[in-house]
Amino acid sequence: MKARIYIKLKPEVLDPQGKAVSGGLRTLGFDGIKDVRVGKYIVLDMDEGIPAAEAEKQVKDMCEKLLVNTVIEEYEFKIDT
Amino acid sequence: MKARIYIKLKPEVLDPQGKAVSGGLRTLGFDGIKDVRVGKYIVLDMDEGIPAAEAEKQVKDMCEKLLVNTVIEEYEFKIDT
Repeated sequence: MKARIYIKLKPEVLDPQGKAVSGGLRTLGFDGIKDVRVGKYIVLDMDEGIPAAEAEKQVKDMCEKLLVNTVIEEYEFKIDT
Repeated sequence: MKARIYIKLKPEVLDPQGKAVSGGLRTLGFDGIKDVRVGKYIVLDMDEGIPAAEAEKQVKDMCEKLLVNTVIEEYEFKIDT
């Protein structure tokens, strides 16, 4: 069972890495870019036996306790069975 | 129009950051974890006027030229109109 977690900075938090990527893309001639945000993408490979509701609870817990800095970041996740 | 790009290390490439996260989760008592891979999640905010096929071509180009190291990383993307 795989859990895919998408973490990005909250919209009100400045993203210098995104700004740098945006500048790089413009230098390469890509003009249609308004904004770039760079975040993290985490794939967890979990034991198959865990019931879906329990897995969901566990992943939320992992995000809040370790993976996400909830002061400046927001997250979503998706579990494929 | 938003393009969401998901970048991760190829399966055969060692992921020390993923190993560290996996160790951290185990230390916190999460036992059901088999593997963790840490990648990047990039959200591009693009001009609305670009036709979907053209946007797709541009994002692919951006990935190959700047955003992804295709030697060790693989990517997928999704464009929301």
